Amino acid sequence: MIPEKMQASFLDAVETIRLAEIDVPRPGAGQVLVELRAVGVCGSDVHYYDHGGIGEYMPDGPMILGHEASGVIVGLGLGVPESRRGERVSIEPQRPCRRCSQCKAGRYNLCPDIAFLATPPYDGAFTQYLVVETDFAHTVPDTMSFEAAALCEPLSVAIWALRKAVVGPGSRVLIAGAGPIGLICAQTARAFGASEVFVSDPVSERREIALQVGATTVIDPIVEEVSAAACDVDAFIDASGSAAAVYAGVEAVARAGRVVLVGSGLVRGELPLSRIQIRELTVTGVFRYANTWPLAIDLASSGRVDLDSLVTGRFSLSETELAMRAGKSPTAVKAVVYPQSGNQR
Amino acid sequence: MIPEKMQASFLDAVETIRLAEIDVPRPGAGQVLVELRAVGVCGSDVHYYDHGGIGEYMPDGPMILGHEASGVIVGLGLGVPESRRGERVSIEPQRPCRRCSQCKAGRYNLCPDIAFLATPPYDGAFTQYLVVETDFAHTVPDTMSFEAAALCEPLSVAIWALRKAVVGPGSRVLIAGAGPIGLICAQTARAFGASEVFVSDPVSERREIALQVGATTVIDPIVEEVSAAACDVDAFIDASGSAAAVYAGVEAVARAGRVVLVGSGLVRGELPLSRIQIRELTVTGVFRYANTWPLAIDLASSGRVDLDSLVTGRFSLSETELAMRAGKSPTAVKAVVYPQSGNQR
Amino acid sequence: MIPEKMQASFLDAVETIRLAEIDVPRPGAGQVLVELRAVGVCGSDVHYYDHGGIGEYMPDGPMILGHEASGVIVGLGLGVPESRRGERVSIEPQRPCRRCSQCKAGRYNLCPDIAFLATPPYDGAFTQYLVVETDFAHTVPDTMSFEAAALCEPLSVAIWALRKAVVGPGSRVLIAGAGPIGLICAQTARAFGASEVFVSDPVSERREIALQVGATTVIDPIVEEVSAAACDVDAFIDASGSAAAVYAGVEAVARAGRVVLVGSGLVRGELPLSRIQIRELTVTGVFRYANTWPLAIDLASSGRVDLDSLVTGRFSLSETELAMRAGKSPTAVKAVVYPQSGNQR
Amino acid sequence: MIPEKMQASFLDAVETIRLAEIDVPRPGAGQVLVELRAVGVCGSDVHYYDHGGIGEYMPDGPMILGHEASGVIVGLGLGVPESRRGERVSIEPQRPCRRCSQCKAGRYNLCPDIAFLATPPYDGAFTQYLVVETDFAHTVPDTMSFEAAALCEPLSVAIWALRKAVVGPGSRVLIAGAGPIGLICAQTARAFGASEVFVSDPVSERREIALQVGATTVIDPIVEEVSAAACDVDAFIDASGSAAAVYAGVEAVARAGRVVLVGSGLVRGELPLSRIQIRELTVTGVFRYANTWPLAIDLASSGRVDLDSLVTGRFSLSETELAMRAGKSPTAVKAVVYPQSGNQR
Repeated sequence: MIPEKMQASFLDAVETIRLAEIDVPRPGAGQVLVELRAVGVCGSDVHYYDHGGIGEYMPDGPMILGHEASGVIVGLGLGVPESRRGERVSIEPQRPCRRCSQCKAGRYNLCPDIAFLATPPYDGAFTQYLVVETDFAHTVPDTMSFEAAALCEPLSVAIWALRKAVVGPGSRVLIAGAGPIGLICAQTARAFGASEVFVSDPVSERREIALQVGATTVIDPIVEEVSAAACDVDAFIDASGSAAAVYAGVEAVARAGRVVLVGSGLVRGELPLSRIQIRELTVTGVFRYANTWPLAIDLASSGRVDLDSLVTGRFSLSETELAMRAGKSPTAVKAVVYPQSGNQR
Repeated sequence: MIPEKMQASFLDAVETIRLAEIDVPRPGAGQVLVELRAVGVCGSDVHYYDHGGIGEYMPDGPMILGHEASGVIVGLGLGVPESRRGERVSIEPQRPCRRCSQCKAGRYNLCPDIAFLATPPYDGAFTQYLVVETDFAHTVPDTMSFEAAALCEPLSVAIWALRKAVVGPGSRVLIAGAGPIGLICAQTARAFGASEVFVSDPVSERREIALQVGATTVIDPIVEEVSAAACDVDAFIDASGSAAAVYAGVEAVARAGRVVLVGSGLVRGELPLSRIQIRELTVTGVFRYANTWPLAIDLASSGRVDLDSLVTGRFSLSETELAMRAGKSPTAVKAVVYPQSGNQR
Repeated sequence: MIPEKMQASFLDAVETIRLAEIDVPRPGAGQVLVELRAVGVCGSDVHYYDHGGIGEYMPDGPMILGHEASGVIVGLGLGVPESRRGERVSIEPQRPCRRCSQCKAGRYNLCPDIAFLATPPYDGAFTQYLVVETDFAHTVPDTMSFEAAALCEPLSVAIWALRKAVVGPGSRVLIAGAGPIGLICAQTARAFGASEVFVSDPVSERREIALQVGATTVIDPIVEEVSAAACDVDAFIDASGSAAAVYAGVEAVARAGRVVLVGSGLVRGELPLSRIQIRELTVTGVFRYANTWPLAIDLASSGRVDLDSLVTGRFSLSETELAMRAGKSPTAVKAVVYPQSGNQR
Repeated sequence: MIPEKMQASFLDAVETIRLAEIDVPRPGAGQVLVELRAVGVCGSDVHYYDHGGIGEYMPDGPMILGHEASGVIVGLGLGVPESRRGERVSIEPQRPCRRCSQCKAGRYNLCPDIAFLATPPYDGAFTQYLVVETDFAHTVPDTMSFEAAALCEPLSVAIWALRKAVVGPGSRVLIAGAGPIGLICAQTARAFGASEVFVSDPVSERREIALQVGATTVIDPIVEEVSAAACDVDAFIDASGSAAAVYAGVEAVARAGRVVLVGSGLVRGELPLSRIQIRELTVTGVFRYANTWPLAIDLASSGRVDLDSLVTGRFSLSETELAMRAGKSPTAVKAVVYPQSGNQR
């Protein structure tokens, strides 16, 4: 029985989250209603919480954050087969127009009219129910936890980055930053067959975790020259958002190698242009992802990537604000909010 | 009858070129001796002349410049078939090791042990005879001038840049800089099927020439916003070496577009990183070229690219120094030295 | 003023076409109503007319043929901006589901749930009005004729085939069959920069037309060995549907070359498998096209591909049956039906 | 101390091998002399032994077989650094011209002037010493057995096939034939990240071994419909050389999937052409390999691919004929000859 009302966490202002009751939405044609079970906290959520917005993305009023979500299908819009009711799903938090040249070329993440959860003017998933397009509610096996299903979202970021970095069997990869994305990239690089995975991070606890999840070598960029420690890697993935890390990483890449920018926050930055030319490096960046969920679910459900062990904090919906602050510790990786747990999880 | 001695132009010091007599070299196994007929002056030659070196490339002593060369095969090394004698050839001015992983992967331009004409410690082509590996002395049809055969070198730069920029039928391309490389890129882009070719250059005479060789629109970056005038191009090729042009050009590129750096001189430079990420642009550079000569000869000999009309100055070998200075005029495009003309061409 | 009723040509049985009056359809959300102006006759239409079906595609009852269509937007469904009314459009005759993995990967032509004009159970365009999804009604410039706008459909087949054949500047291409598709492939190959275009056809009139539209060499496969006449081409495109032509064409392809099957009708066929292995050829086929219309319109409207001159027969809607028979002559290329011309064009 | 003379196994005629003494060869410039330690028996060796030749490859006189070889560098040609002496190496058994367009494009396996071990007129490795180009004598780690080093050759075949089949994380792959190549393909597919690996073979013992090395499902093509059992795989690799297996395998491939022919022996064969078109499949084949050794050594030395356990027969050089016959048993996988063991291993 789907209720009429539900709880949702609203970001009212910088460092101000408020629980409020709103209407449960109704799925339209080709949509499903998902009862949310687990929602991860992303660095971008924390950035909104800390600063009220991200660059040009500034909410006009109260806004619901959260875009790493999983749950159970409990309602069906017009035309959705009854068989989907009750399915456990991982939510791909975007809704492209499906009609523009980017969508039709298979790059729907670059759709200029895309709606993305928790990106103004669209609300996110720190709430109890969510309407999702059928094909963006990806069925997961029963053996997969709701936490892992939610974390298929950052795993998708990693998959997309590794595809763009052309990481495959035998690759040598450098990853800057051992936050959640960097750690998932490291694990996933191994699953893609990478032979050597270097992770650089100035925080020793972070480097320790990186070693646990599959890094073959860790680097403290404060004391070591990155381009010497990870000399001539095939690919460099920046998951740090640090201008210095980007510059140093580019210098570590071998001829014809790839550089992929994942970490956000750098509006502009300096690059070693002559190095890019002389070595014919390719520099690109990722903006979310496209067509990654089937592989994310495959990697996570088969155990080749372990998402569950990344969860280091668990919170009820009423504790969303605590969840936002949980990631400041050097040993914290991923906080998860459980929307159905009311005031306690 | 091949003489024992030949003339060569030596760069002794900044702005100091001296004609001297040296031994004619002898071709080894798999090599041919080419009697040089036309040698183009490249911007890099002028840079050596003006500054004595380019960045880390600094000659130890007197050095022969020139790497855009054509001529006639007059001598054969061991194992070279007699049929090659007398062939008119365009010279690809590089000699890779053929054994490293880059060479064997088809990227011989990235060979760490490559020898390149007029790049220390290797001498160049402002001389009368040159030894070349058989497979880098590319036969040209009788209908092709020696000037055009020499200019297959900058045409190769353009081909390589356009391949990396994935320019093809219907592409919209922005080129910054209407020097020789930019102009040849513009022409070649049309030959590749580009529908629109925007060329930006602050010099009006340059823009005028660009329109003559195939640009569909020219932009004065001093008075126009490049990203507005050439909005959402598929590819941007920098042939200017200007940091401001690179930054502005990147901002003009559409989602999933390509940026290729051809212009040299920028050791480091600032880029709009968030734009690269949000639009998932690909930024790369070219370092010379690989496997371009057959197409260059095809394009030039079929008239789809007109190289002859780019020649705006003609000089004898003894006038090499004049040739170096000829490019300063805004209406000059390409100076050519004729090595067999002695003191007069 | 849109009428209530319209005329349509129904295929009732083999070689039996009947004009009948039916309701004008109404556009739904995201759709437009197009008043059709020109509809080309395709070989597949003729096959339906001659045999009542194509392989597994067998209509259950009377069926409207025709899928090469153009017209003017006269009606707008919900959400379509008023600005589109009156636009002259070329119709891409497919409607994919937009939600399956093929659609979202940019290969919407491979959508298992696609609807395609004149492919049972879907009717086609030999009628006066048609409902089309907004993004499949491609605006054409005023300078483009309705005939050329309709023939953007076979041009799209050619573009798709040439893309799969990786034809570009300097390519040497063999095309088997000088029917409409082969002829358009030949023209388009030149527009893509191909240096040599060989066309083989046993009919001398066809070879003559091929030479007029851009073939550089024509081959009579009855008297010449194709693999000798077109030795070591980079790509071979079969537009003949002949098993012998396919076999002979594959033998003409150089190491690492491409083979693309466009001609239909061959359910199974023998190939020189050891040749495919030893030369590492790539053999593939085309099923319609995806994302080709913008380039088709560009090529046709700029004159790089001349579609108008391919029209060799003109018929009113009531003459559809005559149009079906018009292609039997060796000098006929393309018949066009004008749906608004009533009993006379 | 390198001897003057060495033993070699000559194929004199069908099913006739003779041990004879010949001169030890001397390495030229850029070459090394390798004391051979292990040489695998390939199906092609057995084919020469059984039939005296393979298709057009027919020896003129006595011929040494064997091309899967490893050993120790004991002699250095001109210009080879002393540091290479004593290195344990896996031999890539080909010597391309390095100068043709295929070589320079990175496809040196397609070089028309290539020399390949045990392919007339070139002798092979069932002997005690072999001269090899420095860059085709690939250094292996001390932890790698000579058997594994020799079997990097068939592993390279598998790597090349999987690259052409675009097998990666999450791929579903069908492999026809559980001989040595099929088994190594299955193992390697898992190392490349494939989620499901179907292997079809009519021999139950072979299917059993396939399951042991990583197949997730095995199929008996005699009793099961392959395209039903391995429905809609992303890639199909034929390692059987059976026309029926090729046909059935192609029918199992999903839209936009890849087919790679590895098994040899089929000069011509029938394919479901309409399926290739409608599904836009890509069919290609492998001819040896290029640039695979670094990855082969990485996969084998890291244990991701286990080559040692494939060795089911061990023979001295004087037992070469026994080794040729060893593969007939359904449980035999790979026979290895030890060239230094004289009359006994």
